[in-house]
Amino acid sequence: MGYVVGDYLLDRLQQLGVTEIFGVPGDFNLQFLDHVIAHPDIRWIGSANELNAGYAADGYARLRGIGAVLTTYGVGELSAVNAIAGSYAEHVPVVHIVGVPAKDIQAHHRVIHHTLGDGDFHHFRRIAAEVTCAQADLGAADACQEIDRVLNSVRVHRRPGYLMLATDTARVEVTPPATPLAPPADFSSAGARAAFARAAREFLGGHRVTVLADVFVDRVGATDRLRTLVGPSAAQPPGLPHATLAWGKTVVDESAPNFLGIYTGAASPPEVRAAVEDADRLVTVGVQYTDSITAGFSQRIDPRRTIDIGPERTVIGGVDAYAPLSLSAALAILTDLVPEFAPPAAVPAHPVAAFTASPAPGDRLTQAALWPLVAEALGNNNIVVADQGAAFFGLATLRMPTGITFLGQPLWGSIGYALPAALGAGIACPDRRAVLVIGDGAAQLSIQELGTWIREQLTGVIILVDNNGYAIERAIHGPDAPYNDIAPWRWADLPNAFGGDAESVLTLRATTVGELRDCLRAAADEQDRLVFLQVVTGPTDYPPLVSDIASALTRANTGNGRI
Amino acid sequence: MGYVVGDYLLDRLQQLGVTEIFGVPGDFNLQFLDHVIAHPDIRWIGSANELNAGYAADGYARLRGIGAVLTTYGVGELSAVNAIAGSYAEHVPVVHIVGVPAKDIQAHHRVIHHTLGDGDFHHFRRIAAEVTCAQADLGAADACQEIDRVLNSVRVHRRPGYLMLATDTARVEVTPPATPLAPPADFSSAGARAAFARAAREFLGGHRVTVLADVFVDRVGATDRLRTLVGPSAAQPPGLPHATLAWGKTVVDESAPNFLGIYTGAASPPEVRAAVEDADRLVTVGVQYTDSITAGFSQRIDPRRTIDIGPERTVIGGVDAYAPLSLSAALAILTDLVPEFAPPAAVPAHPVAAFTASPAPGDRLTQAALWPLVAEALGNNNIVVADQGAAFFGLATLRMPTGITFLGQPLWGSIGYALPAALGAGIACPDRRAVLVIGDGAAQLSIQELGTWIREQLTGVIILVDNNGYAIERAIHGPDAPYNDIAPWRWADLPNAFGGDAESVLTLRATTVGELRDCLRAAADEQDRLVFLQVVTGPTDYPPLVSDIASALTRANTGNGRI
Repeated sequence: MGYVVGDYLLDRLQQLGVTEIFGVPGDFNLQFLDHVIAHPDIRWIGSANELNAGYAADGYARLRGIGAVLTTYGVGELSAVNAIAGSYAEHVPVVHIVGVPAKDIQAHHRVIHHTLGDGDFHHFRRIAAEVTCAQADLGAADACQEIDRVLNSVRVHRRPGYLMLATDTARVEVTPPATPLAPPADFSSAGARAAFARAAREFLGGHRVTVLADVFVDRVGATDRLRTLVGPSAAQPPGLPHATLAWGKTVVDESAPNFLGIYTGAASPPEVRAAVEDADRLVTVGVQYTDSITAGFSQRIDPRRTIDIGPERTVIGGVDAYAPLSLSAALAILTDLVPEFAPPAAVPAHPVAAFTASPAPGDRLTQAALWPLVAEALGNNNIVVADQGAAFFGLATLRMPTGITFLGQPLWGSIGYALPAALGAGIACPDRRAVLVIGDGAAQLSIQELGTWIREQLTGVIILVDNNGYAIERAIHGPDAPYNDIAPWRWADLPNAFGGDAESVLTLRATTVGELRDCLRAAADEQDRLVFLQVVTGPTDYPPLVSDIASALTRANTGNGRI
Repeated sequence: MGYVVGDYLLDRLQQLGVTEIFGVPGDFNLQFLDHVIAHPDIRWIGSANELNAGYAADGYARLRGIGAVLTTYGVGELSAVNAIAGSYAEHVPVVHIVGVPAKDIQAHHRVIHHTLGDGDFHHFRRIAAEVTCAQADLGAADACQEIDRVLNSVRVHRRPGYLMLATDTARVEVTPPATPLAPPADFSSAGARAAFARAAREFLGGHRVTVLADVFVDRVGATDRLRTLVGPSAAQPPGLPHATLAWGKTVVDESAPNFLGIYTGAASPPEVRAAVEDADRLVTVGVQYTDSITAGFSQRIDPRRTIDIGPERTVIGGVDAYAPLSLSAALAILTDLVPEFAPPAAVPAHPVAAFTASPAPGDRLTQAALWPLVAEALGNNNIVVADQGAAFFGLATLRMPTGITFLGQPLWGSIGYALPAALGAGIACPDRRAVLVIGDGAAQLSIQELGTWIREQLTGVIILVDNNGYAIERAIHGPDAPYNDIAPWRWADLPNAFGGDAESVLTLRATTVGELRDCLRAAADEQDRLVFLQVVTGPTDYPPLVSDIASALTRANTGNGRI
């Protein structure tokens, strides 16, 4: 066979950084899969189901800058749609390729398997249009142009794209791409840059400047620029005081002395709250306030003292907007202005493990002790994936060592995401160690991906909090309600049932502070095996931030308070 | 608290036959869940994830005539959408209740968790509209009327409905329903009945009549009427010869002597094919031809010799249509005409276990031996749920004992459906035994529902074919391709890992014919435990019907033949 549309798509993905594709085979994608496994630079990762494949591609894309998932028509793609919606909500560039029936069959409106039986082959494309930034039903006439269009949108908007690859389109012969896709250019206008530079100098000059950053800094690829802005310089030797929201956690180096901490609105530590809300001048960068990271929109940011840098425009003092101006361009302009800022105030030191009371080795584990101990044990360069429950909120406020990437899903908040996402992140970066922190309630939703983790011989650490159910739901409503219980599993038996053995997995269990310290030490010593660590805590024991956020969400749901 | 919208919805569901609701808690449905667990006649079944909950509700609805699944907004409902689409494709009445953010929050377009972050709260309703027959975003003004409208549509169309239950709407006080929802009336016109009766007498009188039935007989509740039509009568003592398609399997009693077998087009046994295709007069009832049950649309039915009875209209001789005429009404009219038919030809006997070669106890198990042995071991009244792979096609053509209900999903064909669906079917009918037959490839997608099965102390039999991957995909394409392999699990360890013990689960394994016979005998003796039977066969060993159907699907996908 010659060079076909399927090959073109794979080459384009590979040019953008994809070296692994996740998914599940189905009869409408099997022929394309022959090209996947034949591609010299792309590896197929068969997932245990499509939702997990979508989650894994999302975790992969957060590290690699792009990810891909392959499903079959109808049954497969719809199983993955929650993962794709999460990528859309959280601005993660995932390409969803769906193997669909031949155009010939579609044209005859045949009642074939994996359809609704009504001859309409575009139901699922309309569904995809709600949760992707670009879609194409690839046809023989312009498949390559349409692939390029969708991939370009995915890259520019950093959101998922949807490609219907019909079995007959996939094998149409085409010419290989002559050149790589051009990277997106900076879209800032010279006028907006110049006007913003003048206004920012006026607004910030002679003032103490504090920075509050969030997730869009990562999404537009401006992490290095942000770190340059806030880092030590000849003009400002201590660097600028800065905080992030929890969604943007680790977009800065949290071990830097001028890092203030995580700002969570009214739930912040008092010194972080004061430093942000009472700042002489505040620069917010790539910030999106959502309910769960602000304890119910409790942030108090005075726009009159703030420059707000968004992905495409910047607003000074709450009124003057400068556009089109990229976030990166705005950061570069501010970096040039740093020598004109007043010297910053000192940042109070805060240790990693802010124990309220120092735990003794024999103490039963509580969440108050658990998360600082976990944070202390993290190694430089770990990729920490936190389930969007007690794990995320327990770790979010703790200072991470240099080099850590911390991933959660605070806007979309899909229970079940974290385990496959950690697998995807680990596969994206084989030279870094994935550390998954997850509750038992969340783990049950996607537990079969543990088998893929073991089959892929990925090392890493899984810290599973065994507390008999949905702790974050208990904190919101019904602490003792039976619907917040889960089926009682023997967690320690699962790694072996899913194919692990003593060579590949070390299974540990901790119920006390001393046992946890020992287990974390063992995990650090076991770089070549997966460590599966079951940690037992009480069912109604929550980290402090969970209680604060749960109260806000309860108020919103019961109408006792407006959010 | 007084009587609220949530109570009204639950009472309506209970009136229609729902006594169990499946689902996963989330913060937008927790308060409603308080009403679910407080309801005297409804039980909450917490599922391990939302897709599995949707599948379970589908299996439940196939037995009960209605089912319900509860999820939370966005993340939860989208995880279940594949199951809902399956219910839509296969005409199964499932009510999908989604706990959604308060109307107050929606009106403010807040960027809250479980949304896409754009303030649009109707993305997921538009998605649901593609795969449900009715939708409502319940509001305080007319929640009860809207609930009744959607439930009525679900009942009439036997397809899923979608209800958005905002946290503030759920607790609006309302009046309990004064009367139950009126059952749907027969919509047939007197004129259509009379005209059809005259024409049918003319068309069938004096002829030998054969009946071919399918799934819509079940869906419109006409199973008893069909059985009366084809059963022995004074006028026709042997009854009418009849067959079904595989989708409608067990809509008739397959142990009756005038049951011909399963018609699968060109893949049928020659005597079944001849009896159907060469019938003097054929009556097709509730039939929908799809690719997978006709070996690629290979049916050869001459419309000139056929009466085709559909759910809402009947066509005689391929040209004369009679409507509005319900399937039940048409069957009743034909039953009155039976004395005028010519005496039927004799139906050839066919045993349950049509072994091509009689297997010896020491023989390695093959699929040719496996499925007849399983069919022989089935007990009256079993509910057999067959995964839409080798299990379905292996069992579909074998004669079932009296009283069996056989469930598959041949149109939608979602891998992963069968395990949770069997759980749901078992919960719907606690006095019958659910028998799940499933391949390892399919089982991995939804395996965590085994924990729910065990927690619910449901007895039953799970026959898991361990053949290292997707056998039906291997038959279609890539028999040795790595993408058709799955991660190697220790299947026998899973029941215990998911909470089972010797009291609740008997775990068995068979690799030979003799071992399988012993295991099936043990399963029959163990009515009070779940029996988990691992059956080992070769990876590229398929039942004969799989090979025939796979060839047709391969032709369709590769364009070497038109379908």
